[in-house]
Amino acid sequence: MKSKFIVIEGLEGAGKTTARDTVVQALNEQGIHDIVFTREPGGTPLAEKLRDLFKRGYEGELPTIKAEVLMLYAARVQLVETVIKPALARGAWVVGDRHDLSSQAYQGGGRGVDPQLMAVLRDAVLGDFKPDLTLYLDLPPLVGLQRACARGDLDRIEQEALPFFERTRERYLALAAQDDTIVTIDAAQPLAQVKAAINQCLSQWLQRGAL
Amino acid sequence: MKSKFIVIEGLEGAGKTTARDTVVQALNEQGIHDIVFTREPGGTPLAEKLRDLFKRGYEGELPTIKAEVLMLYAARVQLVETVIKPALARGAWVVGDRHDLSSQAYQGGGRGVDPQLMAVLRDAVLGDFKPDLTLYLDLPPLVGLQRACARGDLDRIEQEALPFFERTRERYLALAAQDDTIVTIDAAQPLAQVKAAINQCLSQWLQRGAL
Repeated sequence: MKSKFIVIEGLEGAGKTTARDTVVQALNEQGIHDIVFTREPGGTPLAEKLRDLFKRGYEGELPTIKAEVLMLYAARVQLVETVIKPALARGAWVVGDRHDLSSQAYQGGGRGVDPQLMAVLRDAVLGDFKPDLTLYLDLPPLVGLQRACARGDLDRIEQEALPFFERTRERYLALAAQDDTIVTIDAAQPLAQVKAAINQCLSQWLQRGAL
Repeated sequence: MKSKFIVIEGLEGAGKTTARDTVVQALNEQGIHDIVFTREPGGTPLAEKLRDLFKRGYEGELPTIKAEVLMLYAARVQLVETVIKPALARGAWVVGDRHDLSSQAYQGGGRGVDPQLMAVLRDAVLGDFKPDLTLYLDLPPLVGLQRACARGDLDRIEQEALPFFERTRERYLALAAQDDTIVTIDAAQPLAQVKAAINQCLSQWLQRGAL
């Protein structure tokens, strides 16, 4: 059984943690127990440090948008090369909380970074490495923000204005429409239905030959 | 008088600090006193933090070579956008201790990063921004290392084996040969002659129309 890299994507408050637990349970039911979890940006000590600098800046200085993108890619390639690829190589499955699609959606869509720069960076840094399956949890930004606010931990990115999240969601949807390894899940549904949708998607995908 | 960006480049121990002082004195003699100094990687609080992570790693974890290159470019673009370009825009001259040529020589030449990746990154990140004049202080790596050892502060990069520095020097020389804004100075000469060579080069360059 060849190991796979599955990524959960979506706006803040879309329910990524619940989705991850649902995926893990589904994999366990298929007899897959060697699962490595990652989160991005982060997932190694150095990548977590870059995440911290990216989110908070340093001594009052925030990264420019290009510096931000480069720091995100530095953290990503560090994680891919030292954690994700070695895990896949030894036969473990990897379940990731965010990956490259987040940069394409947040920085490319939300913050309006030149799509050419985003594409060039992705190709130059990651080559043909990409997730086998991405579950994109789609919901209106206002719903997600209300959930994230209730959790009480909005950071610099999460405090961006609503139009930023609308642009981010648009880019998520546009990219999902172009790539059949990205499945869009309606995350505005009641929780039980979201879980059912994830289970159905995974079950079909596993049957289609992932196993 | 249009302001310019002058960069000093070379291996460890090549005499970059002395060269900088010589350049500043020559500029002062031309009536140019508003001069901003930069060093790379670094030059802003965030960029200096990235320099530190690049040189020492974090919690025992060193960056992979691709992460290293991306962190260097993050620091560079931060410095260019928040310090160098604003200084040039207000009419100050900028004298830099290292710039992009260091990445091309050390990471591209010394560490053997794919030249395509290095070129794509430079173009994507910096666009057509480049120094008006680069003084490359050339000397055999062994001579430079002996000088740097005497100073007693060799870091991770400086401790690389001699062949690394030979490859770095080769790339410096190859790039200098292709670009007429890069002037190679023989830094193995006695100090007085190095200074004289820098003064002559600057004087010719300023007369040729930099002023």
